[in-house]
Amino acid sequence: MTTPSRRPSILRTIRPAQVIALAFAGVLAVGTALLSLPIAVQGRSATFMEALFTATSALCVTGHIIVDTPTFWSPFGQGVILALIQIGGFGVMSLATLLGLLVARRLGLRTRLSAVSETHTVAVGDVRRVLKGVALITVTIQAAVALILAARWWIGYDKDLGDALYLGVFHAVSSFNNAGFALFSDNLVSFAADPWICLPICAAIILGGLGFPVIMELRKRIALPRSWTLNTVTVIVGSVVLLVVGTIVLTILEWSNPATLGALDPAGRLLAGFTSAVMPRTAGFNSIDVSQMHPASWLVTDILMFIGGGPAGTAGGLKITTFAVLFFIIVAELRGDTAVNMFGKRLPRSTHREALTVALLSVALVVASTLAIMLMTGLGLDRVLFEVISAFATVGLSTGITASLPPAAQAILIVLMFIGRLGPVALGSALALTIQKREYELPKERPIIG
Amino acid sequence: MTTPSRRPSILRTIRPAQVIALAFAGVLAVGTALLSLPIAVQGRSATFMEALFTATSALCVTGHIIVDTPTFWSPFGQGVILALIQIGGFGVMSLATLLGLLVARRLGLRTRLSAVSETHTVAVGDVRRVLKGVALITVTIQAAVALILAARWWIGYDKDLGDALYLGVFHAVSSFNNAGFALFSDNLVSFAADPWICLPICAAIILGGLGFPVIMELRKRIALPRSWTLNTVTVIVGSVVLLVVGTIVLTILEWSNPATLGALDPAGRLLAGFTSAVMPRTAGFNSIDVSQMHPASWLVTDILMFIGGGPAGTAGGLKITTFAVLFFIIVAELRGDTAVNMFGKRLPRSTHREALTVALLSVALVVASTLAIMLMTGLGLDRVLFEVISAFATVGLSTGITASLPPAAQAILIVLMFIGRLGPVALGSALALTIQKREYELPKERPIIG
Ligand SMILES: [K+]
Ligand SMILES: [K+]
Repeated sequence: MTTPSRRPSILRTIRPAQVIALAFAGVLAVGTALLSLPIAVQGRSATFMEALFTATSALCVTGHIIVDTPTFWSPFGQGVILALIQIGGFGVMSLATLLGLLVARRLGLRTRLSAVSETHTVAVGDVRRVLKGVALITVTIQAAVALILAARWWIGYDKDLGDALYLGVFHAVSSFNNAGFALFSDNLVSFAADPWICLPICAAIILGGLGFPVIMELRKRIALPRSWTLNTVTVIVGSVVLLVVGTIVLTILEWSNPATLGALDPAGRLLAGFTSAVMPRTAGFNSIDVSQMHPASWLVTDILMFIGGGPAGTAGGLKITTFAVLFFIIVAELRGDTAVNMFGKRLPRSTHREALTVALLSVALVVASTLAIMLMTGLGLDRVLFEVISAFATVGLSTGITASLPPAAQAILIVLMFIGRLGPVALGSALALTIQKREYELPKERPIIG
Repeated sequence: MTTPSRRPSILRTIRPAQVIALAFAGVLAVGTALLSLPIAVQGRSATFMEALFTATSALCVTGHIIVDTPTFWSPFGQGVILALIQIGGFGVMSLATLLGLLVARRLGLRTRLSAVSETHTVAVGDVRRVLKGVALITVTIQAAVALILAARWWIGYDKDLGDALYLGVFHAVSSFNNAGFALFSDNLVSFAADPWICLPICAAIILGGLGFPVIMELRKRIALPRSWTLNTVTVIVGSVVLLVVGTIVLTILEWSNPATLGALDPAGRLLAGFTSAVMPRTAGFNSIDVSQMHPASWLVTDILMFIGGGPAGTAGGLKITTFAVLFFIIVAELRGDTAVNMFGKRLPRSTHREALTVALLSVALVVASTLAIMLMTGLGLDRVLFEVISAFATVGLSTGITASLPPAAQAILIVLMFIGRLGPVALGSALALTIQKREYELPKERPIIG
């Protein structure tokens, strides 16, 4: 707000995001090349589309697949996938945290990470601190989850210790980074009723999906909820609400469906129902057969996927905070309040329009992509919308159509994963950083609403 | 803004809308009773659900049917339907115009109808002027269209003069009021290639859908577009864009579909493509078989239906103006402008949140209803979403499932038609009239967006 200029464009502030997009594209090119090598596969070599699609899906931590991970890719190929997941998750978590820090500094707002600071930029020291913090949390959580999973596979399923450790590490990384890649052809369906597998994975997913700023704050002040920042309160409350409501609704809808929950005992149904509510936000593992779910369950899952997880974490989607801002604007409007208040804090006016812009542009992208894929395939709205939201929100769940889509439709999914991973982060921060100023004002007038 | 009070609620300002809703419910009860009479039918009496559904569909100018209008209802029954359509269309057009006037007066904004006025309320004189104006325009347009249609049916289709006049009047009233009821079992499919039938009907629909304030302004200043109010410019530009884009997209999508446009010659395809783009906004006649359209065409139609027509007219939906406000907020946000400008005028900040609230509550209602009907029926998202948006936006187009839905699902459609007809009008004006004031302000803080 300190350096007014005549009609500044979003292009100036979005520049850091362009650099990041280029870096992501570079890693993607390397990943695609590595997955195209004969050493990456067990049988025939991957086509260009298979390598590109898989590399994008891994780097954007989506988990959409068009070839079966455990049987198609060799251990080398699986290692490349794991590396891409780790780079993608770590990259976006750090990037979004730094951009959030930059926004808070510029707008002079308080944040736990910036403490009291006079600068309006993010310094090298901040970058080092954030990268170290993200690395520490990533390694700690992934190691803990990997150990539990490895122990379970070693003890409960008679795997070799080496195999069990490999499975543990792979699924821990895949779950903390909300990637959804699994080393079982049926994903996690065989373990639907095993809490020792499902719960550690769900825990890693939820923690990754809370986002780095929230995890940092919980580490220091978990016993002092009254001192939490608005971001933390919103993400925690939103996550609890979405998990509870999602579990109840999906468990009821699928309870007596013999192809999904109906095959399990009651305790298993509750576990698998909970897991089904965790996965759309936005990990993308599945412990029940998504293609056999009721179309109404797909629609509920669509909503959960589109909202997604917390910002500055490994989850995708619109983000809980964006959704919460829209929700509280409506509450304020219905109550007749001038200010929009949210958990005892007042929202700056600029956030209203930012949230609206991120949400509506996302809706427009999803609808346009859905329309295009429906035209290419003749498939119904249920499955195509699910596939498109799943790609955009980097979830990776599928009703089973991904592999058989024509290449042009798979290309749309690749673009959606890429935009879905970087777009909301980049757009949200670019809008917040854009200096807003006009030289003259036009006369006020309003059309009729509604 | 002149009488602050502590946390005033929307309940106070929505009271006029409650009165209107009660009046509508009263007319609905009378209509249902009349349609339940043996004299209203040709064969067996109507069930309560058939009478209630048809009366609601007529009064809310929707056009959804569960029994065939020409063969089920007697001339008396058809007369009741016609009267309900006329009452519903006239009622909403007058009501919305008066509420718009009230909002403009309270907020001290200019409007063609209020001229320069010092009062902050709508006087008896205003009411009389608006009712007279609406009546005059309604009678004039309906008479002109009825004469053209009657002449065509008399000359071109060998109908008796009496029959031709009856058909002309019924379809003129049904089209100007955007009701979509027809006296042919295939609606207008037999006339898909006849411009003498389709074009007068489309003209009446478009005029009714522009809304009374726009028609009044066009009558006086059609040659002076630079002097038009923001409301008029928005509705005109929006209507042209939606008609042109809708015609192009739907014509291309259905061009070679043998069950829809493919059966016609090229000129007929263009005419039927144009008609198919006019109908979703929100008349609901059909000259091609909707159930045979490509699912992608259904999705395009969903969008057109949801946006709807101009405010204070006979069209339903979210309204072009509400949609345009959201669109220009995004444009302003992407350009980095502080003020949201639209066709050379600046939008008051309050309109941003009003448009957002009307739009998102509508989305929530549509999604919840879709979910409920999918659960009741097991039908797919394509058809159910189409049916729900069609009812909410009082369009009346259907993929053919209406009559076979279970009673509970039909009851949801009845409620949707009622809310869809009165809801956006009442909510939009109630929000604008709510006095916004809070005693104290909370500390500012922002979560991360995107
Ligand atoms: K994922
Ligand atoms: K209609």
